[in-house]
Amino acid sequence: MDESAIHERAARIKLLLMDCDGVLTDGRIWILENGEDQKAFHTRDGLGIDLLHRGGLMSGIISGRTSSALERRAQSLGVSYLWQGRDDKRQAFADTLAQAQITPEEVAFIGDDLTDLPLMVQSGLAIAVADAVAEVRERAHYVTEANGGDGAVREVVELILKAQNRWDELVNSYLA
Amino acid sequence: MDESAIHERAARIKLLLMDCDGVLTDGRIWILENGEDQKAFHTRDGLGIDLLHRGGLMSGIISGRTSSALERRAQSLGVSYLWQGRDDKRQAFADTLAQAQITPEEVAFIGDDLTDLPLMVQSGLAIAVADAVAEVRERAHYVTEANGGDGAVREVVELILKAQNRWDELVNSYLA
Amino acid sequence: MDESAIHERAARIKLLLMDCDGVLTDGRIWILENGEDQKAFHTRDGLGIDLLHRGGLMSGIISGRTSSALERRAQSLGVSYLWQGRDDKRQAFADTLAQAQITPEEVAFIGDDLTDLPLMVQSGLAIAVADAVAEVRERAHYVTEANGGDGAVREVVELILKAQNRWDELVNSYLA
Amino acid sequence: MDESAIHERAARIKLLLMDCDGVLTDGRIWILENGEDQKAFHTRDGLGIDLLHRGGLMSGIISGRTSSALERRAQSLGVSYLWQGRDDKRQAFADTLAQAQITPEEVAFIGDDLTDLPLMVQSGLAIAVADAVAEVRERAHYVTEANGGDGAVREVVELILKAQNRWDELVNSYLA
Repeated sequence: MDESAIHERAARIKLLLMDCDGVLTDGRIWILENGEDQKAFHTRDGLGIDLLHRGGLMSGIISGRTSSALERRAQSLGVSYLWQGRDDKRQAFADTLAQAQITPEEVAFIGDDLTDLPLMVQSGLAIAVADAVAEVRERAHYVTEANGGDGAVREVVELILKAQNRWDELVNSYLA
Repeated sequence: MDESAIHERAARIKLLLMDCDGVLTDGRIWILENGEDQKAFHTRDGLGIDLLHRGGLMSGIISGRTSSALERRAQSLGVSYLWQGRDDKRQAFADTLAQAQITPEEVAFIGDDLTDLPLMVQSGLAIAVADAVAEVRERAHYVTEANGGDGAVREVVELILKAQNRWDELVNSYLA
Repeated sequence: MDESAIHERAARIKLLLMDCDGVLTDGRIWILENGEDQKAFHTRDGLGIDLLHRGGLMSGIISGRTSSALERRAQSLGVSYLWQGRDDKRQAFADTLAQAQITPEEVAFIGDDLTDLPLMVQSGLAIAVADAVAEVRERAHYVTEANGGDGAVREVVELILKAQNRWDELVNSYLA
Repeated sequence: MDESAIHERAARIKLLLMDCDGVLTDGRIWILENGEDQKAFHTRDGLGIDLLHRGGLMSGIISGRTSSALERRAQSLGVSYLWQGRDDKRQAFADTLAQAQITPEEVAFIGDDLTDLPLMVQSGLAIAVADAVAEVRERAHYVTEANGGDGAVREVVELILKAQNRWDELVNSYLA
């Protein structure tokens, strides 16, 4: 998709929805002997989500797995919507839109694998991380340059906030 | 080995057997102060094993080490056969085939190191991960493009399910 | 900035200040199920900070987050100043300079993200890690070849100690 | 150094000594909130050390830090000599040679940083990992192709066992 069409789609976004494993992380699921999960989130994605909120947009995470680590991370970042253990991500998607009172065209979704396809095809801006599977990359409006867990979310936040002409003022707030 | 010969071997597979460390993980064994192991599995390998089962095939893991983390991961993925602490992987291989009532030609095996050689030479489809040692790569019918722990298992699942003409319907189930 | 100008700035440095996440680490914040943080520091950065102290310079870390892991690492390395949970890094910067009785020209600062900009523009030597965001790299006097958490701090220590003609004697102390 | 000279040195080795952080690991020191260390060792280095022992050679680790994780890993691999918390690695080196009743020419040492230099210059075969600091690489007889923690130790084991004409029989033992 050409740059101006992506820009047009990004300008309409009110909510950034994300898959967790492989998008907010590099896909590695760490399992301890006691069965606990551990996940690695990226600090620059964290500031990205913070900037998104300061720019007036909402954020949400829809994950097939359930993890306390994700719950804590989402809480500390003030993520607007968190759905875990959702095998059928479609219902979580519909519920989020109803609660947020927005249309699918106002949603950007970032995914990496087949389970994300049902949400990709509904979203106004469908994004695949660089290391997403081929079927997801093929159906994305935009493929990030960064891999999941390595700044892909930050890259999307910048794309959206620049399309909405909010990026420069946010950067300048650090230089005042 | 040329592509059509690999395809022919893959079409016969009923069971995908895997080594754990270096195949389902990147080879790193994390040791905590209390002696516990910790392992990192990849989310896209996990969905791959799920797709394999949905395609009607069986899965198994044969590991020289013993780890609760692996046991938990195998259980959550519904892995059909799990053998741990097997210094002689040959017996575990023979036991698996007897229990599954299949022949060596119906087994694909993924390995990375010398201890996998005895099973590589017996398997209908012998696969080395990209970062396997030279002796294993030389004896493989197919070497994955991905490193162990970074999607190598997923790559093999796709290879097999495509050779069995099951891949497209599985992908389409996410687009219905 | 050309090499001689960087050398001139480095020759004046008395204190090396660093951000933590993304500079002393690769930016990954590991979260366990119980909510604890875990961080990965690099052994060669550790020896770098040790060499800095042996060369007569001071070190400091200013972090927006709070982490026991960082506190322990800083303590074991004998870091001179540690500020955590500082949303406004400017006050911590001013406090450090007052306590150390030095001027901004005598401070080198290493950052990776927008929250580091207020300190970058005040520091005698402003450094961005290789994988810093564009806005930080653009405002740096020097961009390291190494990524954060992968030797970037060590690279800066060597730059400074070489500019102050202290490096060779430190290396030779290991060959005596 | 040319290949035949390295081969000649490798043929004399009876003991492989290694630094830990940055050699057996990728240099990352993981610190938990409770202050515990965690280290990641590579499975293929582990089999390498096992093969070294089966080839009749001894192994040893000299580390400046102290870690229960290293102690457990060394024990499970049957490492012959383990010295921890040794700021002056020279004494540990001398003690090891006395206990093992060998000469410096019979020792191969793998290092990555300045603290390893005193042992590098004494060893019959001095090896730097690929990502060692420049001063260490310059003084090495051989620089590995692999980074520390990513198979560098395995590479050295193979170099030595091939020079001693022991490699092929070890590989063949897996194919019998």
